[in-house]
Amino acid sequence: MTDIKTQLKEFNQVFTPYLESLFNFPQGPEKKVMEAGRYSLTNGGKRLRPFLVYRCAALFGVPLFPAPAQIGASLEMLHTYSLIHDDLPAMDNDDLRRGHPTCHKQYGEATAILAGDGLLTEAFRLIATAPLSAEIRCQLTEKLSFLAGWQQGMIAGQCLDLYAETAPKDINQEKLIADIEEMKTGALIRYACEAGAIIGKANEKQFEALSTYARKIGTAFQIVDDILDVEGDAALMGKTLGKDAVQGKATFVSCYGLEQAKEIAQKLITEAKESLKVFSFGAEPLAELADYIYSRNI
Amino acid sequence: MTDIKTQLKEFNQVFTPYLESLFNFPQGPEKKVMEAGRYSLTNGGKRLRPFLVYRCAALFGVPLFPAPAQIGASLEMLHTYSLIHDDLPAMDNDDLRRGHPTCHKQYGEATAILAGDGLLTEAFRLIATAPLSAEIRCQLTEKLSFLAGWQQGMIAGQCLDLYAETAPKDINQEKLIADIEEMKTGALIRYACEAGAIIGKANEKQFEALSTYARKIGTAFQIVDDILDVEGDAALMGKTLGKDAVQGKATFVSCYGLEQAKEIAQKLITEAKESLKVFSFGAEPLAELADYIYSRNI
Repeated sequence: MTDIKTQLKEFNQVFTPYLESLFNFPQGPEKKVMEAGRYSLTNGGKRLRPFLVYRCAALFGVPLFPAPAQIGASLEMLHTYSLIHDDLPAMDNDDLRRGHPTCHKQYGEATAILAGDGLLTEAFRLIATAPLSAEIRCQLTEKLSFLAGWQQGMIAGQCLDLYAETAPKDINQEKLIADIEEMKTGALIRYACEAGAIIGKANEKQFEALSTYARKIGTAFQIVDDILDVEGDAALMGKTLGKDAVQGKATFVSCYGLEQAKEIAQKLITEAKESLKVFSFGAEPLAELADYIYSRNI
Repeated sequence: MTDIKTQLKEFNQVFTPYLESLFNFPQGPEKKVMEAGRYSLTNGGKRLRPFLVYRCAALFGVPLFPAPAQIGASLEMLHTYSLIHDDLPAMDNDDLRRGHPTCHKQYGEATAILAGDGLLTEAFRLIATAPLSAEIRCQLTEKLSFLAGWQQGMIAGQCLDLYAETAPKDINQEKLIADIEEMKTGALIRYACEAGAIIGKANEKQFEALSTYARKIGTAFQIVDDILDVEGDAALMGKTLGKDAVQGKATFVSCYGLEQAKEIAQKLITEAKESLKVFSFGAEPLAELADYIYSRNI
């Protein structure tokens, strides 16, 4: 078995050309918005979320093609839309993403807004046309729209993140950060694993195990991101670092300090791996992935 | 039978409270984005698209509640997201919509972007959870994501509309305007009627009749909009008028002149009504609606 870093790389080498193959460009000038969407979608990215869909479905013997690949592509499009809108001047106002100009820097703000809208819309088209039963397609559509949504999903987390920038300092910072993480980053990682379980027709116990695994690594992922914003190498990461501290933004690091943040992340990774014990075999890549999330660049 | 204006008004009186009832606000500060979405959704609007879903489904004996109402709500949310994003400073930069401040004027740009994203996401959740067979829910999801999308749908039309602002003057203006209309405005009107037909389990001939009807009134609707931008009453319409001429934007009126534009719209309305002859009874409201679209304020 190759190590997880190689597995992710090999997956990316198969998955990114597949992603590119999904684009069917119109002939007229309206193709610009799709070009902008593809630019952001194929501009780097580890494909962590589609990899999770794939590995979770694989636990039940479902191969990458066709269904997990299409559901993974849908999720990667949805994730990319959130990055494009997040980078906009009115939001985080970022110029750099994965070492390249952000979508609005490259294509202008109007096209970037539309490219995000297009990716989000296309994400749902990909689920609706996936080679899965209609029941499962509806289940996945419902789950994704909830976990990406404004009630308790990604958009709600994004809204809370905006609020946090000017929130009074006497509120419960730990709870605020945990809530933001759970909704903003955690929700899509959770969807990735739960979608894999749904495609694989997991029983309740198996579904819960993968859902727990996802929640644990999702939080760990965000903590590591906050640590890297302090300790990371900007060139290696391809984005502007140190922004949290400059903006005086509450993060896991500002709340708990570097050392304790690392301990919490490590504990979550251990718990994530424990939840995989339900599976008698096939879960090694998910366990290794959990370790990899912790060790990324720390 | 009451006249169509009264029917629309009565429909609105039932449908808008229903729309409001769909909001389940979170408790924390993340509720702001949902508030912004509801603000734009319930801030006036004739509910033309949900009314079309309802009246087309009614041709097949399907009552408004529960399914056509939920699919109509989904469509109205999607329509409203497009208005919110369209009004943004980077797009049309409008301060006024339906006589009220636009979403970003009221809630700030970041929240408005998220509110649009939230409405779009929620639109797909409403389809996925509608009381219809899973097959039909998937069919509706696929159709909406295509007609609202970036390949030949609403987003592609929006992109073409941006392009039109700086397009070379020697291109085929008539084709450009027809393409923009078909994708930008026409696509959702077409979805409304086709969704009603799908919910009603229309046969092929009935489906095609409603699809043709929708295309005809969709184009007529846009032509009338262009005419009203020149001849309309700003106070009555609740938005800034005369913008097309100021921006030197190509419209049906700038291409064909006022009189010919009116003739084209009238011809389309006649053809739209002819396509309804497939139905031996029940289509009167749709025929009256076609006339109403032409006569709105001309």
